[in-house]
Amino acid sequence: MLKANVYVTLRKSILDPQGVAVKNALKSLGHSEIQSVRIGKFIELELDEVAENEAEAKVKEYCQKLLANEVMEDFKFEIIK
Amino acid sequence: MLKANVYVTLRKSILDPQGVAVKNALKSLGHSEIQSVRIGKFIELELDEVAENEAEAKVKEYCQKLLANEVMEDFKFEIIK
Repeated sequence: MLKANVYVTLRKSILDPQGVAVKNALKSLGHSEIQSVRIGKFIELELDEVAENEAEAKVKEYCQKLLANEVMEDFKFEIIK
Repeated sequence: MLKANVYVTLRKSILDPQGVAVKNALKSLGHSEIQSVRIGKFIELELDEVAENEAEAKVKEYCQKLLANEVMEDFKFEIIK
């Protein structure tokens, strides 16, 4: 069994209202040092019956088809043996 | 300016319906190799005026106070210089 961690983030040019809300909440708790908060998704996958050399292509396909919306989001991933 | 990446995940014992939905969607697209999908949050923070040796305690405090619900979620983080 292989594991993969996928990180999906909003593109820099896209406003992140959830991140702004969390930033304001942290500031209102007295944490004036907070400059920016951006919130993305962290997706943990477990794959069976996949060879290590195929896993990268597979996970990239999942991201492009389903996990990320490439118009608004960037993704990166790592395969964990 | 320091950056920190925070990863918030549901505890293993907590059902993740969003992850199950994504798993089923990937399976219905023909990816029968998918065993498990768990979806968490990936939070990118930028901090100003914080010494490197204070950053770890600060980010842990944000997680415990606001970013994670420790009853249901685990968190880990890394400080990036």
